Amino acid sequence: MRIPQSVSRGLLLATVLLTAAVAWGAEPGGEGSYSDPVAPVLLELAVVLVIAKLSGALFLRGGQPAVLGELIGGVLGGNALLLWGHTPASAVAQGGLLAAWGGLVQDVLAHGGPLDILARVGVVLLLFTVGLESDIGAMLRVGPSSLLVATVGVVCPFVLGFFVSQQLLPGGPHHPLIHVFIGATLCATSVGITARVLQELGRLNQDESRIVLGAAVIDDVMGLVILAVVAGMIGAEGGGEPLTAWGIARICGLAVGFLVVAVLLGRWMAPRVFRIASRLLGDGLLVVTAFAICFLLAGLAGVVGLAPIVGAFAAGLLLDEVHFEDFRQQGVPHRLEELVEPVAAILVPLFFVQMGMSVDLRTFANPAVLGFAVVLTAAAVVGKQACGLAVLGRGLDRLSVGVGMIPRGEVGLIFASIGRSLTLGGERVIGDNANAAVVIMVIVTTMLTPPILAWTLRRGDARRSRSGVAAAGEQDAGEG
Amino acid sequence: MRIPQSVSRGLLLATVLLTAAVAWGAEPGGEGSYSDPVAPVLLELAVVLVIAKLSGALFLRGGQPAVLGELIGGVLGGNALLLWGHTPASAVAQGGLLAAWGGLVQDVLAHGGPLDILARVGVVLLLFTVGLESDIGAMLRVGPSSLLVATVGVVCPFVLGFFVSQQLLPGGPHHPLIHVFIGATLCATSVGITARVLQELGRLNQDESRIVLGAAVIDDVMGLVILAVVAGMIGAEGGGEPLTAWGIARICGLAVGFLVVAVLLGRWMAPRVFRIASRLLGDGLLVVTAFAICFLLAGLAGVVGLAPIVGAFAAGLLLDEVHFEDFRQQGVPHRLEELVEPVAAILVPLFFVQMGMSVDLRTFANPAVLGFAVVLTAAAVVGKQACGLAVLGRGLDRLSVGVGMIPRGEVGLIFASIGRSLTLGGERVIGDNANAAVVIMVIVTTMLTPPILAWTLRRGDARRSRSGVAAAGEQDAGEG
Repeated sequence: MRIPQSVSRGLLLATVLLTAAVAWGAEPGGEGSYSDPVAPVLLELAVVLVIAKLSGALFLRGGQPAVLGELIGGVLGGNALLLWGHTPASAVAQGGLLAAWGGLVQDVLAHGGPLDILARVGVVLLLFTVGLESDIGAMLRVGPSSLLVATVGVVCPFVLGFFVSQQLLPGGPHHPLIHVFIGATLCATSVGITARVLQELGRLNQDESRIVLGAAVIDDVMGLVILAVVAGMIGAEGGGEPLTAWGIARICGLAVGFLVVAVLLGRWMAPRVFRIASRLLGDGLLVVTAFAICFLLAGLAGVVGLAPIVGAFAAGLLLDEVHFEDFRQQGVPHRLEELVEPVAAILVPLFFVQMGMSVDLRTFANPAVLGFAVVLTAAAVVGKQACGLAVLGRGLDRLSVGVGMIPRGEVGLIFASIGRSLTLGGERVIGDNANAAVVIMVIVTTMLTPPILAWTLRRGDARRSRSGVAAAGEQDAGEG
Repeated sequence: MRIPQSVSRGLLLATVLLTAAVAWGAEPGGEGSYSDPVAPVLLELAVVLVIAKLSGALFLRGGQPAVLGELIGGVLGGNALLLWGHTPASAVAQGGLLAAWGGLVQDVLAHGGPLDILARVGVVLLLFTVGLESDIGAMLRVGPSSLLVATVGVVCPFVLGFFVSQQLLPGGPHHPLIHVFIGATLCATSVGITARVLQELGRLNQDESRIVLGAAVIDDVMGLVILAVVAGMIGAEGGGEPLTAWGIARICGLAVGFLVVAVLLGRWMAPRVFRIASRLLGDGLLVVTAFAICFLLAGLAGVVGLAPIVGAFAAGLLLDEVHFEDFRQQGVPHRLEELVEPVAAILVPLFFVQMGMSVDLRTFANPAVLGFAVVLTAAAVVGKQACGLAVLGRGLDRLSVGVGMIPRGEVGLIFASIGRSLTLGGERVIGDNANAAVVIMVIVTTMLTPPILAWTLRRGDARRSRSGVAAAGEQDAGEG
């Protein structure tokens, strides 16, 4: 990708202008200055988007998923100041571009600040799109194999993660619930990365793929329930009264009940709501109705004490193309996914860059943290290999199923970000050390999956062609 | 629009569930509660969107612009608590739904809070789309008539508004710059409302329409420059040193210079940036590139002390369909406007509902405020009638030109919202009284325009058909 000279000249000129403008604008109390609180938010959002897209494109070119580039771009961006011997906080006092960059990193990471809120809306939209792409009917049909694979794939990494954290998490002693939480970050499979690899290899209709994708979706639901229970236990513990068995059952029931009631009631109401909306006059009613349902359910989930992503996922599940028929008859030409896409395209990368920036590379100066990250990653990989053993039926490529379940991606990161905002006895549930280890675990599991999965699938083909007709017959039966 | 029984039953059930959930969730320190700062933001955003779309649809059905419905929906929503004898602040202490509603109104109006930031992003996107729809070439071609009409249409209302405010603004004595600011809120014409009326009547290609639309766009630019100068004068005055003539010239030069440099440099760079972006790998690169340019210029405008909307408007002006050719060749099927639309559809209504909510109807209990609002509105209408006299050329319908310039719409509201966040000697530049009067002025001028314009255009037709062939010849010449 050769960049023509005129472009490089233009970029240079723009950079000079930008620097001059920033330097001039930073002059405090300049004559007739006017300040709008949205201006720094927009400027920083633009910078984050450029980082995200450039590093995402770089990783795609290297055959890696874009999300990995966004994460690593965030890690580098968040730690770039170390090259000048500064932390974001110390850089802000310096003035000039160092201060601007330090301010950017601080603003992106500020809990509850404008950019943090936008990143959280991004996560809500991400789970909304995951829900939109999940099909409840197909989930119910993939049947016992997926359910068993998902259950094993949740229990094994959870138990392994708990023990690894208990033995190795630096800076102890820690409250046992912290280890429970770290175990929980290993549970959920990132369906997106595996799905993309399978799609690129043209394997989406193979039995193994159906099992993995079905299990990954069930994993998401189980992960959300576990998150609700663990977060609830931490909240109760922090309030001074440890959760009773009845309390745990109540949160469990609440999470499952919320999903079931939201989806059942929603599937019944959504066509009616969309029919009303399609009769209203006005622009953008399809997209506004869909977003309002998503925001409403996400907000209600928050109100009943669940994570907003549970509600957003439920909203995605219950919305179905069928509901938009009334709009389509009016000639509204878009699919809902296409309308959500531009909004998600701006906000979702912000979340991944934010997660990358939350990793403080100095934590790895402590060998114990690095060791913890390595063993946690190993636990994440090994824990999911048990999934292969849970596959029902003969002649299936169990290794590919296990490998397909490895990537953690967004859901592990969402758990970590939630853990960073929970406290237990004044200590953050996911502190800097644990956070760095979890992000590294996500990065490594995501990087490992595409090459290994391509290799195990080819290996599976070779074995299948050797065992010949019998396996083919079995596959046909599986298709029925 | 008959609502079937099943829907009303469903809505009832949903409301009961929602109320129960809110009441239960509001119980403080509930066992195992978990809170995410994004949850209330999403819930309140969903409620605001429902208010905006329902009231917008109601007004469209009554032949009025949707924006009017959003504004009035905001006024009613913001003042609904008065029926129970509460202000938002006093309602929050009550618990239950009253508290939830009071919290909603407070959160929507909180300066720099998450919903305020989202509304400000909405305004930035609104000006971005206005810029996208404006064509610099066409603006330059409409020529002297539009420029003269625009200048007269800025100067007359400004002077009238200044004197009305000086004589009648209740609660004085006020700083003279406050009257200057109120005069400035009367300057800019809302091109959107007039354009929609002309479009519905099939008149967009009539000479009068071209003059009005061209003048409205020039008005926007002049308005932005005036805003920059007045805000700069207020900032300098607040800093203790009144602005010198050199300071005024500098701000003026900065605003015009920023627009010119951004547009010229941007038009040269944008095709190159888009060509680079089109060669990158990744999803949503067109929309992210466009938004990044918009956010960058809006943020830079803020950094150099201008309103972010100036930068957003410049970004819209410089982006041109031509730049996306590289993307279109790759089969990216969207026009940029279509990609901005879903984002704007969520955030722009939030701004108008927020503006409506900022009106405290109790201010009108003071007859002086009501009187001020009435006279200010009259000044806004009368001030633009001078525009008709500035039309060059014979045989044109001068009355329609004057009437077409009446609506103030979004730009007046944006000025008012900026005035609310500026202070001068401890007093808000746009206080509650002035704010209420400006919003009423915007509502009334917007409501008056469609019926009066339809009437003056018919009257113009009648006169033209009476004067016969001569006028037709002139119109042909005008088309050339």
